[in-house]
Amino acid sequence: LQITHSSGNHGQALAWAAKQYGVPCTVVVPNDAPACKLAAMRAYGATLVECDPSERYGTVAMEFLEQVPHLDAMLIPVGGGGLVSGMAVAVAELDPKIKIFCVEPEGKRLEDSLKSGERLWDQNAGPVDTIADGIRVLRVGTKCFPEVVRCCEKTVLTVDKKEIVRAMELIYSHLKQVVEPTGAVTLAALLKYVDLLSSYQKIGLILCGGNVDLKYLPFSRQ
Amino acid sequence: LQITHSSGNHGQALAWAAKQYGVPCTVVVPNDAPACKLAAMRAYGATLVECDPSERYGTVAMEFLEQVPHLDAMLIPVGGGGLVSGMAVAVAELDPKIKIFCVEPEGKRLEDSLKSGERLWDQNAGPVDTIADGIRVLRVGTKCFPEVVRCCEKTVLTVDKKEIVRAMELIYSHLKQVVEPTGAVTLAALLKYVDLLSSYQKIGLILCGGNVDLKYLPFSRQ
Repeated sequence: LQITHSSGNHGQALAWAAKQYGVPCTVVVPNDAPACKLAAMRAYGATLVECDPSERYGTVAMEFLEQVPHLDAMLIPVGGGGLVSGMAVAVAELDPKIKIFCVEPEGKRLEDSLKSGERLWDQNAGPVDTIADGIRVLRVGTKCFPEVVRCCEKTVLTVDKKEIVRAMELIYSHLKQVVEPTGAVTLAALLKYVDLLSSYQKIGLILCGGNVDLKYLPFSRQ
Repeated sequence: LQITHSSGNHGQALAWAAKQYGVPCTVVVPNDAPACKLAAMRAYGATLVECDPSERYGTVAMEFLEQVPHLDAMLIPVGGGGLVSGMAVAVAELDPKIKIFCVEPEGKRLEDSLKSGERLWDQNAGPVDTIADGIRVLRVGTKCFPEVVRCCEKTVLTVDKKEIVRAMELIYSHLKQVVEPTGAVTLAALLKYVDLLSSYQKIGLILCGGNVDLKYLPFSRQ
């Protein structure tokens, strides 16, 4: 039996893998997860159990460093902070020389909070108005925030819609990879902050995930 | 120095690889190759030398069988026949038990020629009217045709626009891979001919290539 907690991408991957090996799979999903992600997990044969939305962590950093051992920096998208805090904690253990940069959509203002060490966001504010819907959560969560402060660079890389769409189109046309807008923010940041990042030779980017509405790709003619 | 002959995909791949290793690369290109493919090769630093259009062969079968050794059948898109004849000859040497099925766009009528052993196409006919522009060439070339007759199954798998677009959308949404319509014809055939192919356990599909106009993806709203 495989069991995990995921709002979508990791759950889909586990459900698919479990199906290949004929193993039952249960995914605990936050009850605000998008319907298309839930449908994909069900289609791969997973049993879904709903729960309240909460933080999540990841082992993607370990896998990344196994495949590409010598990095100088990593760029990671930040929404609620589950991915970046999990990765940053892992990287701090595995190879503390690697600098972790947070990438955010315009309007999040993570840098203010990181530099002050306090979660300065308005408790009543809504989500960020961004095309990158995977990281539209405004506030980094209370459990994740201290780890982000401890492990990440204080300079935050901020990208806007135009920069995200341009990076998305580059990924489609050159990497031939389908990503959602959130999956393109790190390349957008790399292209925008090329001077700031010029002292790093080898930079790892997280391109996650691929849950895009194919009927409305932002670089297609409508 | 790297040198190859390619109308696009292989040339792009070699140009990219050569650039990674700082090696000069020359690609001999047919003078009717699409401008976007030439631009991509130039962008990767290749020197281009034009020549008249001609047949081409491939080593993709050898690479495929190295990665996936035990196949029962392979589905291969057929236009002028360069790819399929090259692959079929290689497969006949490496593992003659593997059945090779040609996949064509509706209107090509390859099966008539294959079964008669003669190139029955009208010399004056224009290209096939198909969304799969990589295989719109009507006639299998004179050098390729005998190899296709010798090495491929006489039953040809034929797909139409709707089937191709559906397969293309499946590849984008589930494999997260950007392919052009021609790159989706083999999956379209697999889905359509599931009964005919049901005796084969392990079927290899060639999904080639990715030179698609991202502004006009056929499953996006226009």
